[in-house]
Amino acid sequence: MLNPVIRQLVENSQRFRTHVCVGLDPDIQKLPYGFDRTVAGVKAFLTEVIRASTGLCIAFKPNISFFEGMGFPGLTMLSELRGICPTDVPWIIDGKRGDIGNTSAMQARFMFDHLGADATTLHPYMGDDSVRPFFEYHDKLNFVLGLTSNSGADTFEKLGMATGGGLWETVIRRCVDWHHEFGNVGLVVGGTQGELGKARAIAGKCPFLIPGVGAQGGAYDQVLPVATGGGHVAVINMSRSILYGTPPGGDFSDGIRAELSKFVNH
Amino acid sequence: MLNPVIRQLVENSQRFRTHVCVGLDPDIQKLPYGFDRTVAGVKAFLTEVIRASTGLCIAFKPNISFFEGMGFPGLTMLSELRGICPTDVPWIIDGKRGDIGNTSAMQARFMFDHLGADATTLHPYMGDDSVRPFFEYHDKLNFVLGLTSNSGADTFEKLGMATGGGLWETVIRRCVDWHHEFGNVGLVVGGTQGELGKARAIAGKCPFLIPGVGAQGGAYDQVLPVATGGGHVAVINMSRSILYGTPPGGDFSDGIRAELSKFVNH
Repeated sequence: MLNPVIRQLVENSQRFRTHVCVGLDPDIQKLPYGFDRTVAGVKAFLTEVIRASTGLCIAFKPNISFFEGMGFPGLTMLSELRGICPTDVPWIIDGKRGDIGNTSAMQARFMFDHLGADATTLHPYMGDDSVRPFFEYHDKLNFVLGLTSNSGADTFEKLGMATGGGLWETVIRRCVDWHHEFGNVGLVVGGTQGELGKARAIAGKCPFLIPGVGAQGGAYDQVLPVATGGGHVAVINMSRSILYGTPPGGDFSDGIRAELSKFVNH
Repeated sequence: MLNPVIRQLVENSQRFRTHVCVGLDPDIQKLPYGFDRTVAGVKAFLTEVIRASTGLCIAFKPNISFFEGMGFPGLTMLSELRGICPTDVPWIIDGKRGDIGNTSAMQARFMFDHLGADATTLHPYMGDDSVRPFFEYHDKLNFVLGLTSNSGADTFEKLGMATGGGLWETVIRRCVDWHHEFGNVGLVVGGTQGELGKARAIAGKCPFLIPGVGAQGGAYDQVLPVATGGGHVAVINMSRSILYGTPPGGDFSDGIRAELSKFVNH
């Protein structure tokens, strides 16, 4: 039986003819003109972003760190925003969690039960018992960091393993096994990485969450066919280019819709 | 100039003649008799743990996930407990964070500025730009996951690299470079791991944070000389065996003091 979050992502990409996910990475210093530079202002801003984007994206991906950066009022806002996002648009909380088993169970409870996430992201480093408590939420989806979009991917992820291939390839192959067992394991693979096609070729049926397109430099038109190669599920995240892309003086909601419309396959 | 948190850990281990750090991993279901099974009950419990442990440990290490597992009231409690912990006992918030650079900066702000951490823990997977924003808080200390105490350490951490050694060794060697540059980079190495001595031999001057002693199976007496070999700084964490070790009917605070006293070098 297909995981319900994966099924919803597929339905949304058919309904809305796009693969874009809107990343909600609020920076109080970058709010457009007209929004107070306060936590309340950020909430008003993100509420508008969600309303303007609905129907033009397949998911939302708030990164919890940007809410934590505002302290508790920011985290409270994150939990409140779930109620503003339509229930049929998956809410991917980018938390990059992972700890020993009994602790990961607490993390999963926070992400899924307290914050209302449909999906989250996980660090692979601590291995099997650190990710299973998340996978045991069968109706949720988890994207494990495979090959990330940042320059630091060179530090460890791309190092070669004794058995051949890079560390990121080893992580992907293990995620394929986990996905076979649990049905709810995806991968984060950066759109900035030339290895995206190779990653897709070894990743079995794991859905991809692709950061790094837009402000980080990856180009959507080039990334899309590679990411979905063979009919796979891909969620292509854009944050800064959507949130802060409206030119000064332009209507902010119109600007978001115009930007997202560029990625709709007419 | 020695990092002030490292200096405080050294001073405390001399003052109190121990290397034990008390891990604050509150589980509402495990509270001793006499404490309400509510968030307020947990706060009363941890307040007593801190009071009973003061003078018998060199640091406290709350794992943020156990507080998150209680939702926002749990996180609020975590921030309030900082004021109960003496200022000269480092407050290591075990958060296991790490994201792309601009996001890690938000994470560091949450840990250090909002929650009052003196030290934190980091996932190495995403590499250089993911950890630097933490290191740039020069007066704080960061323990990067090297070789963790859990069974999942086998999944990736112990895999062999093309250049020789395990992934965990590569991470440790990189941490030595970072510590040379920033002076505030330590390592998490599990007390359950037979490789502890090897880890100490290659870890230069990086201080160690050692989980896995006590309930997880590592033995303090065996771990201590290996962890401090050559006069290095080691913080040996114990959580469950201290928090929940008092037999039913025994005085809870006395039980904690008696347990911690076992590890004081008289």
